[in-house]
Amino acid sequence: MTQNVYDDPAFFAGYSAMPRSEGGLAEAGEWQALRAMLPALAGKRVLDLGCGFGWHCRHAHEQGASSVLGVDVSLRMLERAHAMTAAGTGIVYRQAAIEELDLPDASFDVVLSSLALHYVSDLDPAFAAMHRWLVAGGRLVFSVEHPVFTARAEQGWHIAPDGSRQHWPLDHYQDEGPRHVRWMGSDVVKYHRTLATWLNTLMAAGFRLDSLAEPQPPAEMVARRPALVDESRRPIFLMVAATRC
Amino acid sequence: MTQNVYDDPAFFAGYSAMPRSEGGLAEAGEWQALRAMLPALAGKRVLDLGCGFGWHCRHAHEQGASSVLGVDVSLRMLERAHAMTAAGTGIVYRQAAIEELDLPDASFDVVLSSLALHYVSDLDPAFAAMHRWLVAGGRLVFSVEHPVFTARAEQGWHIAPDGSRQHWPLDHYQDEGPRHVRWMGSDVVKYHRTLATWLNTLMAAGFRLDSLAEPQPPAEMVARRPALVDESRRPIFLMVAATRC
Repeated sequence: MTQNVYDDPAFFAGYSAMPRSEGGLAEAGEWQALRAMLPALAGKRVLDLGCGFGWHCRHAHEQGASSVLGVDVSLRMLERAHAMTAAGTGIVYRQAAIEELDLPDASFDVVLSSLALHYVSDLDPAFAAMHRWLVAGGRLVFSVEHPVFTARAEQGWHIAPDGSRQHWPLDHYQDEGPRHVRWMGSDVVKYHRTLATWLNTLMAAGFRLDSLAEPQPPAEMVARRPALVDESRRPIFLMVAATRC
Repeated sequence: MTQNVYDDPAFFAGYSAMPRSEGGLAEAGEWQALRAMLPALAGKRVLDLGCGFGWHCRHAHEQGASSVLGVDVSLRMLERAHAMTAAGTGIVYRQAAIEELDLPDASFDVVLSSLALHYVSDLDPAFAAMHRWLVAGGRLVFSVEHPVFTARAEQGWHIAPDGSRQHWPLDHYQDEGPRHVRWMGSDVVKYHRTLATWLNTLMAAGFRLDSLAEPQPPAEMVARRPALVDESRRPIFLMVAATRC
């Protein structure tokens, strides 16, 4: 089952108003960590799965990627990505669900996916496809919502009687599967997996793990955006860099 | 700094009364998962870091290991390990803190460590030492308390007004360092690290990650021991299998 909540007008309006949507990578708290995990992109054929507004695609182009393909299920997202991309970059945007994407074998040097794979119900075929699309030695870098964040569908803090954030409640960790989440007024289905499942599935698909990150926003961003002050209390994202064996 | 709470008489008495202490591996909820991650031990030189009562050492001997060295900081633990080990097994027990252990390079095929490394303050030199002690291609399998479990020094459930376990509270996740834990009436210092730190430190020391586990007790054990019924709600242990490159 593929899902396309981003083309829901109300959801799209809400998402478009997020700091990362208006300010791009500079306002994404995890961008510096993700960037540090990316290989050098100059001369590389780059695939971005779940490209959204195309921020990472344009970054890859600016870094000298020889070709960039951005894929997203949402036409609204891709329309805006197009509008934000200067003519002549050569970036190609394609509308497709990750689960239904068909690409030639060994046609990419780098696969990037930012905060998209937790929407994919079947992880094995997705990693298997990425393995096919990458050349031997190619690199995969992805971020997803952290298992600690996806375990409970509520995805919220435990609030003390005085209204403060008491702690992050964890529950149902070993119960993998869909989570029906309310996000910006819409029903969104995310797939919770344990950390062991994320990494073991990746390795079983033929990838070697290179590094992990559980990023925190940079201090200067926390200073500017007080809502981020609790981000050190629990991990929200999991990032993985791997090499296709 | 090394620590030896196990030689505290009150702590030792409490620890000795735990199901895993009286019943051995059969009563350790994570044993089946750990066993599944171990390589074949026949003919192998096995080092057990934090061997405690020697259960894993005796298992390695039963599996045909060519030699077994069990190391623990606690003399009381080692005395009992000796007493439980039949004469003629060839298992050697040595009293030492992991941090101060000195062994010849490339003298082991398998290093095993069960629930000990979260007591070690400096992880880099510990993994570096294991790398030196292992032959190329040798295997390291270890379990530790999960970062979700070590993040808060309280290490307990959030209790609802009706006395039930409401959820597992997570906090201070990114704040790595010592946690002063009360355990069986004693002060115990455990070292909290993020998951990313555990795995990145291991890989940086020259290990390739093979698999992870966040085990749950087997259903039959949960049926026998109702206190385990909530173990699926949050991970308590992290297990890692890796190969020395």
